[in-house]
Amino acid sequence: MAAKNEIGVGLLGLGVIGGQVAAHFVQRSETLSSHLDRPLVLRRVLVRDADAPRSLSFPEGVLTNDFNAVLNDPDIHIVVEVMGGENPAADYLMQLLQKGKSVVTANKEVMAKHGPLLMEAADRSGAQLRFEASVGGGVPIIGPLQNDLLANDITSIRAIINGTTNYILTQMAQEGVGFSVALAQAQKLGYAEPDPTNDVDGTDAAYKIAILASLAFHTAIAQQQVYCEGITTLQSEDFEFAHELGYEIKLLAIAKRTEDGVQARVHPALVHKESMLAKVEGPFNAVEVYGDLVGPVVFHGLGAGPAPTTSAIIGDLLAVARSSANLSPARPWSVLPIKAMADLETQYYLRVSVTDQSGVLGQIARVFGDNNISIATLTQKDVDNHLGTAQLVITTHPAREAAMQTALQIIKQLPVLQEVNNLLRVEPI
Amino acid sequence: MAAKNEIGVGLLGLGVIGGQVAAHFVQRSETLSSHLDRPLVLRRVLVRDADAPRSLSFPEGVLTNDFNAVLNDPDIHIVVEVMGGENPAADYLMQLLQKGKSVVTANKEVMAKHGPLLMEAADRSGAQLRFEASVGGGVPIIGPLQNDLLANDITSIRAIINGTTNYILTQMAQEGVGFSVALAQAQKLGYAEPDPTNDVDGTDAAYKIAILASLAFHTAIAQQQVYCEGITTLQSEDFEFAHELGYEIKLLAIAKRTEDGVQARVHPALVHKESMLAKVEGPFNAVEVYGDLVGPVVFHGLGAGPAPTTSAIIGDLLAVARSSANLSPARPWSVLPIKAMADLETQYYLRVSVTDQSGVLGQIARVFGDNNISIATLTQKDVDNHLGTAQLVITTHPAREAAMQTALQIIKQLPVLQEVNNLLRVEPI
Repeated sequence: MAAKNEIGVGLLGLGVIGGQVAAHFVQRSETLSSHLDRPLVLRRVLVRDADAPRSLSFPEGVLTNDFNAVLNDPDIHIVVEVMGGENPAADYLMQLLQKGKSVVTANKEVMAKHGPLLMEAADRSGAQLRFEASVGGGVPIIGPLQNDLLANDITSIRAIINGTTNYILTQMAQEGVGFSVALAQAQKLGYAEPDPTNDVDGTDAAYKIAILASLAFHTAIAQQQVYCEGITTLQSEDFEFAHELGYEIKLLAIAKRTEDGVQARVHPALVHKESMLAKVEGPFNAVEVYGDLVGPVVFHGLGAGPAPTTSAIIGDLLAVARSSANLSPARPWSVLPIKAMADLETQYYLRVSVTDQSGVLGQIARVFGDNNISIATLTQKDVDNHLGTAQLVITTHPAREAAMQTALQIIKQLPVLQEVNNLLRVEPI
Repeated sequence: MAAKNEIGVGLLGLGVIGGQVAAHFVQRSETLSSHLDRPLVLRRVLVRDADAPRSLSFPEGVLTNDFNAVLNDPDIHIVVEVMGGENPAADYLMQLLQKGKSVVTANKEVMAKHGPLLMEAADRSGAQLRFEASVGGGVPIIGPLQNDLLANDITSIRAIINGTTNYILTQMAQEGVGFSVALAQAQKLGYAEPDPTNDVDGTDAAYKIAILASLAFHTAIAQQQVYCEGITTLQSEDFEFAHELGYEIKLLAIAKRTEDGVQARVHPALVHKESMLAKVEGPFNAVEVYGDLVGPVVFHGLGAGPAPTTSAIIGDLLAVARSSANLSPARPWSVLPIKAMADLETQYYLRVSVTDQSGVLGQIARVFGDNNISIATLTQKDVDNHLGTAQLVITTHPAREAAMQTALQIIKQLPVLQEVNNLLRVEPI
């Protein structure tokens, strides 16, 4: 039996995501507990075969192939579902919620098909149902829609929420390759599954926009009600002509609230190259939410992968644990030293005005060398023949701020120097 | 005396933001209450002069110039502070929190200078302290750091969190104007205050990065500990040369967690033009958070203004009200009609292959005209002399999907038509 002061957790599924979630409990148990005033304990993990060999080891009795061992364990308060697929996950979640156990799920298919019913079941029993991981990987989007943006009437959502297709479209746009070549590249790099159907035909994006639209408009929208076109018919000529017209081509998931109803659709679209959505590249996702108060807000990040998904799941788990324990976060403040600016290491851009005479470049280069600062680029600009001055623009490789400031003081004393116009730092991408 | 089932709210300050928050209570009281099982009632508003004439009218006794009337009202559970400035706001908030009243504040100066102490006071008394509106206007960033991203070790934050300076820098970059011209434009359009000192010298951004860094690294970082350079020394040549080198210039607020401490700084920096931060234009803000699990996440939106700030304040207010009432959201689901795709109105891109002969353009244009579809651009591409075919790329003004599909069916029957290569929708910016 569990100690009274523990929060018991059940886990359904031990695939790639489940394994990472379970590992998080082992590797970061202290950090997890630091956010609460009592420990979170993984009590049961539902697997197909409890006796199969595994890289992670669990205490005796944790692994089980019997769902009822999770459902009926009175010391399990929160269940994390990462089995995937519609059945039996949907049925399991309904049983758990009806029994008052809170659920954290990454299951977009279940949420897109049964979300409103499950949310109602949770409301009735007082359990919580959280599903941040079902859309956009670790990028917070469900939380903001349910909480931070709640004051707004949301009028539209436009999203790039399938990393596989966005990777393929980025390759087609940038490399000029056709769909099948880009798909093969994506598969080779792990951005597309061996069977990519659900991604390239738009189904996965339709699941996700059904979830977002249901939340944003507080009305039940099922995936089957989302108009859906995939990206398989796009040809390299379409990208060429779209670029000429000033557009990129993206697979958009769009939901709009109008006076007479709700529109929900997934299809490739030309988006103006200056829009934020056009700038979402490779496996990244972005969700643009338009609220009547806040205007357009964009959430951008990696939309898939075990680590981002675990970030969302553990975030949800902590939120449920905190609110069911009715805790305010009581993590003690650490006292970290604030580093001196002199210790910064970064790249620099320096613009100086100098007397236009031979040997100037050498003098300045020597000062940099004496201070262990390596020059990356040097350009001479704007010779003013009348005044006999020239401007130099120098960028450096990473150097210490202290060294750069010392060099700058010495350069200021050089007889050939007329003015230090600007010293700026260069931030890596 | 308040009815037992009400949640009483106090408001400190009735300037532009306070006025909009108060108006929200009047104009959207039903929506507000729909998120809770009991009404939120504005019981007291602290103003300098309770008898001054105002456009908003309040019930007798709500306006007061006595802070103690708010502090000592046992029926006020949550206080919204929008007075601004360090004093007396910091003292008021401490007194309220010590008394167990939850606080929602938009005050970046107070949070940057006294945030950790106020948070500790809240933890001790069991009150809540929320301050989403203090950074990034209505863009959710405090909430995600405190909740959604909690599973991560945050290693860096890089942000454009001052809309005034970003507007000025965008003007300097795009129009080639100098600092003072760009500042005057910003003032004329309301993006800069008559006294812009706190914005252009970086102080405002330093407040905000101190708040974000304290939360992300859970260590107290005061604004005075943030290294700070403003934008006043930038010249148009710097933008010119930065562009030649492949960079934009942005005022960045940066906080990093390293093995031996924390770095916090605000200064203009060259950022690679392909980075997300380089693409943040005009009055927009963006915060990039790097977490070890989630990778880079970017939050982008309008960083200031009464409506976005009200969005953040009301969002925080609802969160406090929900959790202090220990409610799960019980808002009933609406049942909105899902609109048919045929009713969509959008722009289109059509690519067709046709026989290269005279009159083809006219035939196709006539079909569009007959269906009330107005052509925006028409380009003839890739004449294949051997096959005698040409490709046409047509974009339209907004038209109904049903009309477009009808037109497409008719075009498919034209003897000159060889193939419909693709029909795509064009999304407005």
